Amino acid sequence: MEISERILLSAEELFFRYGVKSVTMDEIARELGISKKTIYQHFPDKDELVFQVVEKRMVKNRTDMVCSVGAGKNTVERVVLMNEVMRQMLSVVNPGILFEIKKYYPRAWQVFQKHMQEHVLIDTVADLRQGIADGLFRSEINVDVMARLRLKEIEFGFDNQWFPPNEYSLAQVQYEFMDHFLRGILTDEGLSVYLKHYPA
Amino acid sequence: MEISERILLSAEELFFRYGVKSVTMDEIARELGISKKTIYQHFPDKDELVFQVVEKRMVKNRTDMVCSVGAGKNTVERVVLMNEVMRQMLSVVNPGILFEIKKYYPRAWQVFQKHMQEHVLIDTVADLRQGIADGLFRSEINVDVMARLRLKEIEFGFDNQWFPPNEYSLAQVQYEFMDHFLRGILTDEGLSVYLKHYPA
Repeated sequence: MEISERILLSAEELFFRYGVKSVTMDEIARELGISKKTIYQHFPDKDELVFQVVEKRMVKNRTDMVCSVGAGKNTVERVVLMNEVMRQMLSVVNPGILFEIKKYYPRAWQVFQKHMQEHVLIDTVADLRQGIADGLFRSEINVDVMARLRLKEIEFGFDNQWFPPNEYSLAQVQYEFMDHFLRGILTDEGLSVYLKHYPA
Repeated sequence: MEISERILLSAEELFFRYGVKSVTMDEIARELGISKKTIYQHFPDKDELVFQVVEKRMVKNRTDMVCSVGAGKNTVERVVLMNEVMRQMLSVVNPGILFEIKKYYPRAWQVFQKHMQEHVLIDTVADLRQGIADGLFRSEINVDVMARLRLKEIEFGFDNQWFPPNEYSLAQVQYEFMDHFLRGILTDEGLSVYLKHYPA
């Protein structure tokens, strides 16, 4: 593996575990057993490093989603599977990470926002349309409004001003949002498919 | 009516119609047929004026809600009535207003946020608990998480980056959010009460 690749992976791992702000270039260098100078040869500053970590992660997320989610037999199953992927990721992630990026790393935040507004929004709209076509989601819903709401919910779950990590579990909050979102759009048929996955 | 009172009312009316940023102190003075100097005798700058307009409005909103909503026979009816009050207000409001305040008038934004996090959050949690007690909302919902979600939805509806006013109607978006939110938490009994108010 190339050294720049190794730096990105190591940085991501440390960011996920400890958050972005508190991890220094020194610590990343130490983790990899290389000098800080070597890092700076590939990434002029931490800003650029954070930017590239987020960019890489967004590409990977999309591939992961497409793969794991393709396995679902119908839209409800796919959404549930998609949420499982997210939940597994969230259970290991430092809950403050997204809001640190928003606050301190505007370029990286832009990449995240762009990814959400382009790929994730388009995928979500497509999922909602498919669910309606399959009779699982109510045909009266406004797919554009609902898709935007769903995206905002995911972002909101990371907001640790509203959900302090010592009081709320990130994975649990995201689960409650997903569960509520689905129940709000399911038809009777959709609900019975859903309940097979999450027996009360 | 005192002159400071009249200035506040007139400013609010102009802000609601045209947004906050584009209305000048000159225009407020002209609307009232007074000199700009008179305004500055009561409000040292536009920041302070915006701050007091928002503060006054928050107090009024709460009174309006308590009055109109008290008429509801049950929680579902109350939520629907509450939404009607909001809808009427929104239909006359400049859709960009909330995000202008967020961006340009941080003190006024703080008042709004404080109002939401204190009064509106507490009221919403109480409504959700009451609805559960009445058998209208599912008892499995996490009231703290759902109340926060509901508040965020209202704020999100005003976000004109996600909902450009030339493509989306603010009142319609808020209606879709409320409808979806309720359906996501209603029991079967709650749903039939709700559908009596909004026949499909």
